Amino acid sequence: MAPLFEIVARHPDCPARVGNLHTAHGAVKTPAFVAVATRATVKAVSAAEVQALGVQLLIGNTYHLYLRPGPEVVAALGGLHGFSGWDGPWMTDSGGFQVFSLGAGKVHGVGKIASIFPGEAAPKPSGPSLVKLSEEGARFRSLVDGAWVFFSPEQVIRSQRLLGADIILPLDECTSPFHGRAYTEAAMDRTHRWAVRALRAFEDTRGLGPNPHQVMYGIVQGGAYEDLRRRSARTIAELGFPGFAIGGSLGKSKQDMLRVIGWTVDELPQGKPKHLLGIGTVEDILEAVRRGIDTFDCAAPTRMARNGGLLSAQEDGFRLNIKNARFRRDPRPIEEGCDCPTCRRHSRGFLHHLFRCGELSYFRLATLHNLRFMVRLMAAIRARIAAGKPLELEGIREDLVGRA
Amino acid sequence: MAPLFEIVARHPDCPARVGNLHTAHGAVKTPAFVAVATRATVKAVSAAEVQALGVQLLIGNTYHLYLRPGPEVVAALGGLHGFSGWDGPWMTDSGGFQVFSLGAGKVHGVGKIASIFPGEAAPKPSGPSLVKLSEEGARFRSLVDGAWVFFSPEQVIRSQRLLGADIILPLDECTSPFHGRAYTEAAMDRTHRWAVRALRAFEDTRGLGPNPHQVMYGIVQGGAYEDLRRRSARTIAELGFPGFAIGGSLGKSKQDMLRVIGWTVDELPQGKPKHLLGIGTVEDILEAVRRGIDTFDCAAPTRMARNGGLLSAQEDGFRLNIKNARFRRDPRPIEEGCDCPTCRRHSRGFLHHLFRCGELSYFRLATLHNLRFMVRLMAAIRARIAAGKPLELEGIREDLVGRA
Repeated sequence: MAPLFEIVARHPDCPARVGNLHTAHGAVKTPAFVAVATRATVKAVSAAEVQALGVQLLIGNTYHLYLRPGPEVVAALGGLHGFSGWDGPWMTDSGGFQVFSLGAGKVHGVGKIASIFPGEAAPKPSGPSLVKLSEEGARFRSLVDGAWVFFSPEQVIRSQRLLGADIILPLDECTSPFHGRAYTEAAMDRTHRWAVRALRAFEDTRGLGPNPHQVMYGIVQGGAYEDLRRRSARTIAELGFPGFAIGGSLGKSKQDMLRVIGWTVDELPQGKPKHLLGIGTVEDILEAVRRGIDTFDCAAPTRMARNGGLLSAQEDGFRLNIKNARFRRDPRPIEEGCDCPTCRRHSRGFLHHLFRCGELSYFRLATLHNLRFMVRLMAAIRARIAAGKPLELEGIREDLVGRA
Repeated sequence: MAPLFEIVARHPDCPARVGNLHTAHGAVKTPAFVAVATRATVKAVSAAEVQALGVQLLIGNTYHLYLRPGPEVVAALGGLHGFSGWDGPWMTDSGGFQVFSLGAGKVHGVGKIASIFPGEAAPKPSGPSLVKLSEEGARFRSLVDGAWVFFSPEQVIRSQRLLGADIILPLDECTSPFHGRAYTEAAMDRTHRWAVRALRAFEDTRGLGPNPHQVMYGIVQGGAYEDLRRRSARTIAELGFPGFAIGGSLGKSKQDMLRVIGWTVDELPQGKPKHLLGIGTVEDILEAVRRGIDTFDCAAPTRMARNGGLLSAQEDGFRLNIKNARFRRDPRPIEEGCDCPTCRRHSRGFLHHLFRCGELSYFRLATLHNLRFMVRLMAAIRARIAAGKPLELEGIREDLVGRA
């Protein structure tokens, strides 16, 4: 096997780099966008289509796949690769973020970043916690049937062995931007202890499941506290993981997020691959690449597509909203010159009609375009890094418009 | 232009024939299944996909497209062909059946065929009528915004001129299996007067809309009364329509339906094309082909797909229900040897999982398979007619299994 990660070009002015991430199911050119396939399918499109669009890597979710259809069923049908029909590289998230969403995320009414203005009150709870955390693991309610389910660091590794993704992640405890320093530190320390247990479980389960070539990234926690993030990065790096993911709270603003990324990358081994969990707007990706991030997963491009938000380098803010009445008679494609199956055949007027009618075919056509946009965006970013051109939003926009 | 219809082979033992239906947007090999694209899209799939499956002809609906996005919008975006991205042959139904569904269909609680056993009570109303019929036309409530809308024979032709389908239909009044002879006769006579008005409107609107090569079929009514059906067929045939559709009530059983088809075909010019509206199970299609029907439209294959019913010649009743728990770990495709994109890549186990999760990708994969099945079914029927083989269900099943 080739080494997991090789860097083939470095930007002269920042930590951005172009690399190849080698897995048993193919190589991924980085920086890369990882399409979200929570339940072993990207929503609204099929594996063959995702492949044709040039998507390189998918990320499934251990929490969702544990509940349905269950890791044993996936293993019996060939692991994620055979089960899903996507035979390229797979990642699986550990379920740590879902445990957070059902627990502290509900109580604090937030996600990864709390976008509030200074002095503004914290958001209200969106519901009671459905999670009980202990040193042993996380007990939580199944969203499928309400039953209590228990996730331990060991069980999450066993499940991911059966799922068989190429890159897997240990169970972590995500904290919220509204957790104080003391709680964030305690949760971080527990995540570190869980990482040790995960590494042991990873060794103990060698030979289990369909993919003997799995690797496990370590997850860095520590919220938006500089000393905690730096300590977490050093601790996780010392455990010898071959790659890293940045998880948990990224603070209360985009500025906080970029600082967290900077501190973390600073402490991690420069030559190893780095994944940013759950981030994916055009601006955020560009800024994170500038700070040395190699891969990103985010549900936003596909979720936005289903809600009418279509990505285009020809629009301010990089998107248009197809539900807008001004598109009713618009004969142009979403993005002039785009080579996706949707833009090659359909007008904004037709997509507006399908969206307004709630036609199922809309969700697919919109998803195909947004995924293709992300693939083109990452290719443009890689080309800029290799050429040593500035990694600026307007430069990227010009590249995309010129190439589309 | 070639003649609208040419017969290229006849079955030695029954009125079944193989033909070519020539339109300005391509020829259709008959007998053919017409995929339902009510709102200018087949549900859950795109025009490019439908084309790749071998579907030859789509049918849109004037009622639905009139309400949204409106015929003027469709015309501005290139008519149905340009608007939808399906550049092959299009038909449009007139909206007569929708007027029925919202009116007598609701009051009588029925569709085209009332499947009740002899002596059984008639079904209950499913709601009050939303339609007011008069000699002038039909006034009804829009399902989009509740506004009153008026459809006249002239307005329906004007709308279809703007939509630009290759084959269009005049406004008709469909009766229910529970309408008595007197009402059925009065409605039929009105439909005949509307047909005369539609022909005049068709001439008066020459030059309107994107498609100068449109043809209009006549619709035969008369319920399940032999003398009325025969009289309607003769009357509509004498008006000189180049092709015919069989509409309205087809009685209270499959036997009634087949008798109605027999009487009607008997009275119509043998060399002209005949369409059966809204019928499409494997058995019904085979029986109707044996009686001389050339084209069929039916939402059942695509609707069944979305509800879990997947067509297969390898199953009793020609289908399996993917929601059944026995498919949970089934590694086989829906139909062994099927060449559709779904069967080439995905297992029943994966489709079962997608269906149980309500994943959008399920609807597309299931629809692709069922449409491909219908295309293969019609090809097998055409081959049997051309070879003079018996048009029997078990023979067709063997052809499909052998070919799949």
